[in-house]
Amino acid sequence: MNGAESLVRTLVTAGVDVCFANPGTSEMHFVAALDDNPDMRCVLGLFEGVVTGAADGYARMAGRPAATLLHLGPGLGNGLANLHNAKRARSPMVNVVGEHATYHRQYDAPLTADIEGVARPMSHWVRTSRFAAEVARDGAEAVRAALTPPGQIATLILPADTAWNPAPEGAASPLPIPAAAPVQPDAVASAAAALRSGEPAILLMNGAALRRENLAVAGRIAAATGAGLFSDTFVARIERGAGIVGVQRLPYFGEQVEEVLAGIRHMILVGTRPPVSFFAYPGKPSHLVPDGCKVHSLAGAEGDLSAALEALADALGAREAGAVAPSARPAPPRDGELNPQTIAQAIGAWLPEGAIVVDEAATSGFGMPPATAGCPPHDWLSLTGGSIGQGLPAAVGAAVACPDRKVLSLEADGSGMYTVQALWTMVREQLDITVVIFANRKYAILQVEFMRVGAHNPGPKAMSMLDLSNPNLDWVQLAQGMGMEASRATTVAEFNTQIESALRQRGPRLIEALI
Amino acid sequence: MNGAESLVRTLVTAGVDVCFANPGTSEMHFVAALDDNPDMRCVLGLFEGVVTGAADGYARMAGRPAATLLHLGPGLGNGLANLHNAKRARSPMVNVVGEHATYHRQYDAPLTADIEGVARPMSHWVRTSRFAAEVARDGAEAVRAALTPPGQIATLILPADTAWNPAPEGAASPLPIPAAAPVQPDAVASAAAALRSGEPAILLMNGAALRRENLAVAGRIAAATGAGLFSDTFVARIERGAGIVGVQRLPYFGEQVEEVLAGIRHMILVGTRPPVSFFAYPGKPSHLVPDGCKVHSLAGAEGDLSAALEALADALGAREAGAVAPSARPAPPRDGELNPQTIAQAIGAWLPEGAIVVDEAATSGFGMPPATAGCPPHDWLSLTGGSIGQGLPAAVGAAVACPDRKVLSLEADGSGMYTVQALWTMVREQLDITVVIFANRKYAILQVEFMRVGAHNPGPKAMSMLDLSNPNLDWVQLAQGMGMEASRATTVAEFNTQIESALRQRGPRLIEALI
Repeated sequence: MNGAESLVRTLVTAGVDVCFANPGTSEMHFVAALDDNPDMRCVLGLFEGVVTGAADGYARMAGRPAATLLHLGPGLGNGLANLHNAKRARSPMVNVVGEHATYHRQYDAPLTADIEGVARPMSHWVRTSRFAAEVARDGAEAVRAALTPPGQIATLILPADTAWNPAPEGAASPLPIPAAAPVQPDAVASAAAALRSGEPAILLMNGAALRRENLAVAGRIAAATGAGLFSDTFVARIERGAGIVGVQRLPYFGEQVEEVLAGIRHMILVGTRPPVSFFAYPGKPSHLVPDGCKVHSLAGAEGDLSAALEALADALGAREAGAVAPSARPAPPRDGELNPQTIAQAIGAWLPEGAIVVDEAATSGFGMPPATAGCPPHDWLSLTGGSIGQGLPAAVGAAVACPDRKVLSLEADGSGMYTVQALWTMVREQLDITVVIFANRKYAILQVEFMRVGAHNPGPKAMSMLDLSNPNLDWVQLAQGMGMEASRATTVAEFNTQIESALRQRGPRLIEALI
Repeated sequence: MNGAESLVRTLVTAGVDVCFANPGTSEMHFVAALDDNPDMRCVLGLFEGVVTGAADGYARMAGRPAATLLHLGPGLGNGLANLHNAKRARSPMVNVVGEHATYHRQYDAPLTADIEGVARPMSHWVRTSRFAAEVARDGAEAVRAALTPPGQIATLILPADTAWNPAPEGAASPLPIPAAAPVQPDAVASAAAALRSGEPAILLMNGAALRRENLAVAGRIAAATGAGLFSDTFVARIERGAGIVGVQRLPYFGEQVEEVLAGIRHMILVGTRPPVSFFAYPGKPSHLVPDGCKVHSLAGAEGDLSAALEALADALGAREAGAVAPSARPAPPRDGELNPQTIAQAIGAWLPEGAIVVDEAATSGFGMPPATAGCPPHDWLSLTGGSIGQGLPAAVGAAVACPDRKVLSLEADGSGMYTVQALWTMVREQLDITVVIFANRKYAILQVEFMRVGAHNPGPKAMSMLDLSNPNLDWVQLAQGMGMEASRATTVAEFNTQIESALRQRGPRLIEALI
C-alpha cells in the first residue's frame, strides 16, 4: 500500500466517498488509488472551478464533505473562487492538491509555486504531508477539520513521493468531530427578554436555522412573540415551500434593507452576523442595523442552532405552531413578454416537489422567491460569496448528492460563462439537472451598480465592458457543443412548454431564455 | 479628478495603454476612468483567466505591460493560473485588483478576502493603495516593478474609495526603470575558456537570447567554437524560421534530455538555469545536467543577454556569421491519416511570414517545430509555467499587440477547455487569429504520464479521469456559440484546404482537427 492508497482508504472510511477531480501528472498515483477503491466515486471536471463548486453544492445537500483533486498551485488557483464561495457557505470540503515530490521542489521546475500560500486565503486548514507514513493521519485530520462546525475548507497538499512511497497498511481511523458550540444561557435569556419586551423584533437566520425542523421552532417563536423571521440575502441552503415556515429574505441593496428593517428595535441573530452592505457606495452606510436597534446574538455560525432555537422557544413558552406557507402555485403564464417575471411564474407553476434550486440568476432572479413560495417543499441554494461562476458547478454537486431529486439551475448568462465547462460534467454523469439561462446579454447588475456607485454617465467604452452582445452568445450551441440537449425560448409559450417538459423528464437539459 | 482617473492617466503616460478587463462593482470608477481616457484600449474577457493570459501574450509580443482589471480576491484567484505562466515567462504585467472601500473591509462583506494573500504567490510586487492621493504614485511604482528586468508581475490593489475620492490633478511621472544586470567579465572569461577548451559544449538559452539579433551572435559563437545551441523546452518567445540562426529545443521528458546532452562537458547558461525534469518520477533524476558537465552561467534571466552574448563573441573573436535555417517548407500533405504529423506538415506548408504561433498543442505539438523550421520568419510562444489554459488567451493578447500579424493558436482540446471563453473575445475584437484544435478527446499527456510515474495498470475509473469522450466535445458548435466562424476537418485534404484558407483570410476562425 502506498501513501495515496492509504489516503483514499482513510477518506472513504471517514465517509468521504465522492471525489470531484481535475488531475495532472503529480496526482497520477492518487488517481490510481481512486481507481482501486470501489467505494469512491470519481467525477471529472474540465476546469477546477467546476470541481470546487461541485464539492460546495455536494456538501450543502449531503451535509458532508466531498474530496477534490487539484493539480499543484495553479490548479488550486483555478479553484479558489468557488472555494471562496464554499468558505462563505460554511461548506465542509477536503481538497487534495498534488505537489512535486519533496526532493523535486528545490529545482523550481516550471509548475512549482507556493501552494500553501495559494491555499491559505480560502482555506481554514492547510497542511503539506511530509512522509507517506503520515498521509493517512493527515487525511483523517483534514476530514476532522472539514467537519468542524459549521463546516470548513481543509486543504491537504500531497507531494508526489508521499503518494507513491510505501505506507502502513490500512486506513487511519476517523477522528472525533468537535461538537457545535453549546447553547449560551445568557444569550437565550437576552433574546427572550428582547422578544418579550413587545418592541418590534426580528430573528435574522442563516445556516442550519434554515432547515425545515428548525424553521418550525422559529415559527413557534414568531407565533408567540410577533417577531419577524428573516434570512440573510444569500444562504447556503434553505428549505422552503408549502407547509414550511417561511422567512423573508433580506434584500440585496442596502437602502432596501434599511426600508424593511425600519423601526425594528431588536435583532436576534441565529447563526449569522449583523447585516452589512454587499459593497460600499459613496455616502451610503456599510452597517445596516437601524439606529436604535439592539443586536442579540443567540448563536453564532459555529453554534448548535437547533438547540439554541429550542432553548429560546422553551424560555418563551412558545408551543403553538407558527404559520406555514400555504400551498399555492401561480398559473402557468399564457402570453405576455418573456421576462424574469413570466419565467418566475412558469417555474412557480411547474417546480416539482423535492426540487433543488441553485440560484445564480442575479438580477433576473429577484422575482423568483415570491413566485415559488407556495410550491411543494424544495431547497434553495444561493451564491454565498458573491463570486459568480458557482451556480452550474454547484448544480453538479447537488445532483451527485441527491440523485433522486430534480435540480433546477437558474443561471445568468454572464455568470454561467465563468464555469461553462460544468455542462459537460452534467452530461457525462447524466445528472438530472435542468439549466435555465437568463440571456439578457449583459452584466445587468453592473449596469445598475455603475450608476449606484456614482460613477458619471457612462460612455460607450464603459458600457462595452458591461455588455455581452457583440457577439451574442448562443447557449444552445454551447450546450450542444458539450453534448447537452438544449433549446431556446423566445416567447412565454415556448418557455412554458420547455420548462414543463424539462422538469418532468429526467437528465440534463438546458433552456436558453432570451429576455 | 479622482484616484481612478489619476491611475489611468499614470498608466497611459508610462506607456501602458491596453487594459484587459473583467470588472465588478468595486471597479466601476476605474471603468469610468478607462472610458474617459481615449488613449487606453479596453478589452473585455468573460473570465479572468482570459484576462491574465491575454496580458501575458500581449507582453511577450509588445515588450511592455498591459494592465488587467480584476474583481477582488476571487477574481484575482481566477486569474492566478495564467499569472503563474506569465511569471514563469518573465512577462511584465500590471494587475489592478478592485477591493472594498477601506472603511468597508471591517464588515467582512461576502466578497471580502485576503487579496494580498491571493496575489503574493504569483506576483513579484504587491501593494494596496491607502489613499486616493497616493494612487497615481502607486501606479507609477507598479509599472516600474513590472518593467524591472527581465519582467515582473505587479499587483496593485485598489480599494473603491481610493478610486472614487478626489486626487491631485494629472498623472504621476514615469519612474526610471532599472537596467538589466551588467555583463560579468568573470562569467564571460569562464564561458570563453570553456568554449575554447575543445570539449563538447552547448549554449542553453532563454529570454531575450532567443530574439533574432541575439541568436545571430550566438550563431557566430557556435560557428567559431562548434558549440551546440539549445533553448529551454518552454520559452516565452523565440524568433525562428528561414534566415534565422536555429536552436535545438530541449525535449520534454528527462530521459530524452539526458540523451541529447550525453557527452556534453560544458553548459553555458544564457538567461536561464540548469535543466530540470518537469515532474519528478520514481527512480529518475530531477537534475538533468550530465555527470561531468560543468555549468557556466554567462548571464541570469535578469542580465543584459544581448551585451553578454556580444562580450562572449568578442572574447572568442567570433566574427563569422553562423549557420541560419534554410528556407524550406514541406509540401502540403495530400493524403494519409489526419494526425499531428500531417497537420504539422500542412502548417509548415502554409504558415505565413510574420506569423505568431501560440503553442499549447501538448502531445500533438511535438512534431511542429521541425515541420516549421524553414518557414518564413515567425515567432513561437509556448506554455512556460505548465498550467494549461494559457494558449487561447495568449493568442488574444498577441493579436492585440500585433494587429498586422497572423496569430496561429495551436491548442489541445483538453487545454482549450480551461479558458474557452477566449474565443468570444477573439470575435468581439475581430482579432486575426486562426485556432487549430487538436481533438484527440483525451488528456493524452496524462495517459503517457500515468505509465511514466509507475502507477500500476490503469483501470476504467482512472482512465475515465484522463478521457474527454463521453460526451465528445463539438468544437465547431462551441466556437459558433461564441460567434466564431468554425469548421471541422476529419481528413488531410479537409484540413489542408481549411488551414490554407484560414491562414490567408483575416479575422477569427477555428478549425477542429479530429485526430
